[in-house]
Amino acid sequence: MTVEQGYDEKLARILRIAAEVFAEKGYHQASIRDISRATGVSLSGLYYYFKSKEELLFLIQEHCFQTVLSNLEVLLDEVDDPHRKLRLLVENHLRFFVNNMAEMKVLSHEADSLSGEYRRRVNDMKKGYSQVCVEILDQLRPADSPIDTRVATFALFGMMNWIYNWYRPERDIPVEELAADMSHLFLRGFMEADVADLPPGAAEAAPGESRPSIWRR
Amino acid sequence: MTVEQGYDEKLARILRIAAEVFAEKGYHQASIRDISRATGVSLSGLYYYFKSKEELLFLIQEHCFQTVLSNLEVLLDEVDDPHRKLRLLVENHLRFFVNNMAEMKVLSHEADSLSGEYRRRVNDMKKGYSQVCVEILDQLRPADSPIDTRVATFALFGMMNWIYNWYRPERDIPVEELAADMSHLFLRGFMEADVADLPPGAAEAAPGESRPSIWRR
Repeated sequence: MTVEQGYDEKLARILRIAAEVFAEKGYHQASIRDISRATGVSLSGLYYYFKSKEELLFLIQEHCFQTVLSNLEVLLDEVDDPHRKLRLLVENHLRFFVNNMAEMKVLSHEADSLSGEYRRRVNDMKKGYSQVCVEILDQLRPADSPIDTRVATFALFGMMNWIYNWYRPERDIPVEELAADMSHLFLRGFMEADVADLPPGAAEAAPGESRPSIWRR
Repeated sequence: MTVEQGYDEKLARILRIAAEVFAEKGYHQASIRDISRATGVSLSGLYYYFKSKEELLFLIQEHCFQTVLSNLEVLLDEVDDPHRKLRLLVENHLRFFVNNMAEMKVLSHEADSLSGEYRRRVNDMKKGYSQVCVEILDQLRPADSPIDTRVATFALFGMMNWIYNWYRPERDIPVEELAADMSHLFLRGFMEADVADLPPGAAEAAPGESRPSIWRR
């Protein structure tokens, strides 16, 4: 093992355990002391890898997006068919996050906890990633599709990212089937979303609020 | 205005503002003092409505589910067509949460912050709500559909609930169009998700991880 591999593996382990601590306690309530206790690495050992709790949160987020994006780049290399590309994107995303659900919860709940340069860099990675998806959808989109691309992109990410709230590998279908179901649900919907052939009930808007609500309208 | 209406309206206003405070600062970091400052209601005035911060969080969550569920019940009354029912469910959900995005963030991020009886009661409401969706999907499901109902249900809720991360009423399409796009995306996908007629690239699974990752497999 080279020195650099040793560094990477030790950091990867710290990031993984820290993500579990943040997912469990919440970023703001968790302390570096909690991370030290959970990892068995001393405080000074931890500060060798990052200067602050915020940098640690940044490293977790950066590492997730870098891994997902670089795996996706390898998978999409030399693939031309946009259906295939979308399937690979869905499978890559789900495969990574099913195995890293604590990270998914942290990415979702702590998106606003980063500030300044850290936040800018994570946002750039997110934009880059959704742009890959938007480009695939633009290639797939039927000329007469009524679906807004931004809605379609975030509908797909919402469908996938929500799994941290319900998917349990031990009770649910395996990740390959999950990816197949979500790809089919989405692709079919996106490719054939033609209002005209939906049953009338499905196409008509609901009547406005059916009765006054004391909640906000 | 009756006494009860006055009570309800004042409480509704407190819950709405408290949801904004929790969405902004996080439940654990926000204090009842913050809620008092934001609402302009004294601490003793607030404790007239709830005994603890946890009860306040419960009331917010309960109020959301009660409103969404009772609005849905009115909308679905005497509707038989399951396509129509699904469209109404999507529109009801999106219409409420587009107008109550702080609540959506709180429901999502603070699901684990309730304990004991509060948690049990909210979980029962959530189960009741997803059960309404499951029953509609069971009516819609083509006999040969390969899609798992639990996956379909949570794919739909994920698609809808994720909007608090990206949807901005001032820059995005109106909520009616959002509901139309999501209903179409989902309904088409769910009704016609037949693996056999998807292009081969979309149906085949991706090769396993394409290279070793220092992240968890």
